[in-house]
Order: sequence, then C-alpha cells, then structure tokens
Amino acid sequence: MSRLLAGVDIGGTKVLGVLVDEDQPDIVKAEHRVPTPQGTENVLQAIVEVVQGLGTPVQSLGVGIAGLVDRTGVLQTAPNLPSLHRVSVRTELMRRLGRPVAVDNDATCAAWGEQRVGAARGVSDATCITLGTGIGTGLIASGEVVRGAHGFAGEAGHMTVDPAGPLCPCGRRGCWERMASGSGLARLARDAAEAGRLERALSLAGGEVAALRGEHVTQAVLEGDRQALELLSGFAWWVALGIANLVTLLDPGMVVIGGGLIEIGEPLLGPVREHYSNQVMAHDQRADVRIEAAQLGERAGAIGAALLGGHREA
Amino acid sequence: MSRLLAGVDIGGTKVLGVLVDEDQPDIVKAEHRVPTPQGTENVLQAIVEVVQGLGTPVQSLGVGIAGLVDRTGVLQTAPNLPSLHRVSVRTELMRRLGRPVAVDNDATCAAWGEQRVGAARGVSDATCITLGTGIGTGLIASGEVVRGAHGFAGEAGHMTVDPAGPLCPCGRRGCWERMASGSGLARLARDAAEAGRLERALSLAGGEVAALRGEHVTQAVLEGDRQALELLSGFAWWVALGIANLVTLLDPGMVVIGGGLIEIGEPLLGPVREHYSNQVMAHDQRADVRIEAAQLGERAGAIGAALLGGHREA
Repeated sequence: MSRLLAGVDIGGTKVLGVLVDEDQPDIVKAEHRVPTPQGTENVLQAIVEVVQGLGTPVQSLGVGIAGLVDRTGVLQTAPNLPSLHRVSVRTELMRRLGRPVAVDNDATCAAWGEQRVGAARGVSDATCITLGTGIGTGLIASGEVVRGAHGFAGEAGHMTVDPAGPLCPCGRRGCWERMASGSGLARLARDAAEAGRLERALSLAGGEVAALRGEHVTQAVLEGDRQALELLSGFAWWVALGIANLVTLLDPGMVVIGGGLIEIGEPLLGPVREHYSNQVMAHDQRADVRIEAAQLGERAGAIGAALLGGHREA
Repeated sequence: MSRLLAGVDIGGTKVLGVLVDEDQPDIVKAEHRVPTPQGTENVLQAIVEVVQGLGTPVQSLGVGIAGLVDRTGVLQTAPNLPSLHRVSVRTELMRRLGRPVAVDNDATCAAWGEQRVGAARGVSDATCITLGTGIGTGLIASGEVVRGAHGFAGEAGHMTVDPAGPLCPCGRRGCWERMASGSGLARLARDAAEAGRLERALSLAGGEVAALRGEHVTQAVLEGDRQALELLSGFAWWVALGIANLVTLLDPGMVVIGGGLIEIGEPLLGPVREHYSNQVMAHDQRADVRIEAAQLGERAGAIGAALLGGHREA
C-alpha cells in the first residue's frame, strides 16, 4: 500500500499543510492552513494543528521553514520567524507527534517539489528560484538536493553581485536580493517614480511614492504602460544577472522561477530570458538552459516538504 | 589485485601524466610530462606519449583539460588550448589507446584529487579554487563531483561580482577572475604602481610598469614591503568576496585554494580568511568554514583525473 505523505510549509504569515499519496504525488489529497502565530510554543502547536487538520494518521512528515535550517533540524536564523530562532524544530515536533520529522529550508523543499511533480519534472540538474520579498533558492544536482555541509546551501539571494550596491538587512552590500526580489522591484519603482519615470504606477498608488508597491507596477505592466515595462526590463536585467551566475556555476538543465513575482508571467520571463542570453558566460558554446515559471504556486514548499520527508524515510 | 590508475592533465603549457595505485592513491608511482605542442593531432599524440611514458600498461585513464568539457568528452571551448576546440577528446583518445577514457574539466579533477588525497580528505562538501592566470573551480557535494547538466559546472571565475567592473576576455564585465586571479593581481599592481603606491615591486620589475607581474608583488610581499602587503590585502578582499559567494550558495565544509598564487602562503591566506569572515552571509550563525591551501600542487589535476577515471569505471 502506498504511503500518505504530509508536508508543512512554515512561513512568516501562514502555516500551510498538504497531504499527498506517494504513488500519485502530483495530486494534493488534503490541505489545511492557519495563520502563523507569535511565540515558540504557539507556532509549534500551529504546526501540530495543521498536521492533524489533514485528517488522517500521517505516515511521513516533512517540514519546510523560511530560514537557515541546519542538518540536525535546528533553525539557526529566520528573519520572518523570530519565534523559532535557534529552536530544534525537528526534535520539538518529534516529541509532539511521536514520529520522525524531516526539516529543511522552504526553498529547498519548493525546488524538490518542482523537480518531482512540477516544472522541472525529469530534469536531474535544476536550480529553483523563489522571487518573493526576498529570494530563496533550492538546488538539485544529479537528482538529489544540494544541502551543503551544514544544511545552509542555496542562499543565492545573499550572493554579492554589486559591492557598491545598496545595504542589505543582512549587513552586507549589493546582495542579489536587494536588486532582484519584490523589495528590489519596489526600490527601483520608488526611484523611478521620484524621477518622474513611472507615472501610471504612481497614480495607481494614489500618487504617493511611499505607498508604491510591486503590485502597482505589475498592474501598470498588465495595462501595457511603457514606463512600467521599461522598469520591469531593468529589474529583469538584475534577475538575469543572478541566474547567469547560477548557470555559470552550476550548469543546470533548467532554471525554475517561482514566488509571488512570477505571477507577472511573460512580461517578466521574456526580458529575463533575453538579458540572460547576454549575461551568461559562453552562451554560444552551451546548450540552451530553459528558464520556466514554477507550476506548484504557493503549495510548492509544502508539496516538496512532503515528498522530501517521504524520500528521506524511504 | 589493485588497479594502476593513469591521469593526465592537459594545460596550455604542458601535458602532465601520473600513475597512482588504487589502494595507495596518495603515492604517485610514476610521472611523465611533455610541453603542449600546437595542432590537434600533435596534442593528441602528446597525450598518448605521456600515457605510454608512465611505463606500464594502463588499467584506467582519466584526463583533465583546461576548458569546458561536456558530458560526452567534447571540449567545447578552451582559451588556452585552441587546437582542441570542439574536439571529442574522449573518442579520439579511445581510438588511439583502445580503452575507455574519462574526460573532465581540469579544476574538477583537481578538486577530486584534493578531496580524495589532499587538503579536503574526508570532507564531503568541498569547494576547490585554483588561482592561476584565471580562476578554476571544482565542486564536491555529498562526496560526489558536481558536473551540472552538460558538464560545465564550476566556472566560478566568470560569475559577475561587479557589473561596472573591468571587461573580461569572455566578453562580459566584472567577472570574479578579472579581480581575483593572477591577471587580476597584475592589474591591481599596475594601477598601484602608476599611482606611486608600489615602489619596491616596481623596482623589482626594473622600474617598468608594463613589466610588473604577480611574482614581483610576491617577492616584495616576502620581503615584508608595506605597500605590497597592502596591495595583497586589497586583492585578498576580492578573493574573499568570491569565496563568500560560493559559501553562501554551496555551504561547503572546506574551501581549498590551489594554483600558482597559493605559493604566496599565509600572507595571502591570512587576509583572505579575515575578509571572508566579514563578507559571508550570517557569519555568526554558521559553523566556521575552513579555508586551506591545496596540498597536491601542480599534480592536483593529474592525480584527480586518475582517481576520477578509476571512480567512473569502478
């Protein structure tokens, strides 16, 4: 009999759980979510509640968390989950649930999900990038997750791509995610608006530069606004630069882009692909690398966590 | 009976072969070298000559080449080996030697050598950097070589670390190796000499800025010259920046630095380690990553090629 695999994705705003059948992993059989509460005990209890809310005795559990998770399941740092800082999520959940739990970084889980049942199905070397408020990255090499010596691999968002660039909350300068994430897009948009080069998006934000967010740019882009499209192309240049660095280093067969920003779709993907081909090293000597949108949406992390938990125990 | 493994490293100036015993891989039992000739046929013949020069029927052969080698053994591009451009080195050598041949990038081979019998022995996740005229990189994850989808993984020297930086012969701007290789050091030195900030090294170069090379800086450093030490610290900052990027992305347990520049030793390694700790993301949250000098010297590529050839056939 095939096993039922539970996966839970713990983010700054919600705890999302899914249940998948090992033999039909592309079908989500159940889903349950709760808002992320404050306080260590409350977050742990919320995870247990989500698992129980999936409605069946769980045979395998994987958990993804937005932060640096070490190989023993301790969350070493997580800007959006201060309650869980330095908590051994694995041990705490095992105690509460009475069964083994696999804990990984959420972007690693999302990459595994996309590689097993999403956009990168059948691609043995894949790099998956999540463009949200920050940038998460999950790496698959020769069909296996790259975790690194301590479990921290894949923090591409904090690769320095411009030593003279803007300060990052991590304390360093010119991290890729300062330029190529949702907050990077918002910064570029505010700069353009202040210079009078983003009129439509600014009017959508009620004329207030401080209120201008990524979704106003997106809206103007979808209306075909020329200034917003130009801004998006400049943003895509930075996205492509980081992708080119990742391809130069890791040579994946496919790059998958997920996260909130990918909802923009082709108006973003098109310019990213175009800039990429000028930015990657030896473009003419290498096979084309497909740059595709993720397919699993907001469930990618939870689905991947479920499959990764099952994979580890198998 | 244990097998005898032959490995050959094909560089721009020499073809170097070694023979190692599978069961005592840290002892080089034979070595043979010839200068790299011009012309496809001559280079292939030189490789055969080096293999035969090892003096015993070869039971396994691995070859490392400075360039992008695809997974079928075709050298797609190699700036320092124009004769072999687009040549299927694997097929050509198999025809001439009548036995299977494994062909890989030279930095990948060097990384495998250091991980099996060199500085990174026993380290399952290791990043090996060769600082020569350019920068080569070999990646080991979970005890296996990371080759990528097409065999091109590990070209860290061409990661963009400064989009406004100097032009690279690869056609792009601000590649890491523009700043952090031997040619990067020479460029920094010429700039400093022209500004009157590198007097001793310049006098070692006969007072000619155009004649100033890395070894003049090294010589001045070894004499304790303050200006040369300052220049080296600025250079180490760039080396450390790339290492920090690699650690942020790959989380190795050890970074090994080889290549000609590592002969400078502690005067280079010390500043690299110091700058690194300020440049890597979340330094206080992660275990220390050891940054160590390579141990196999100029034989690293050939030894690694031998062991990789044996590993592939085993």
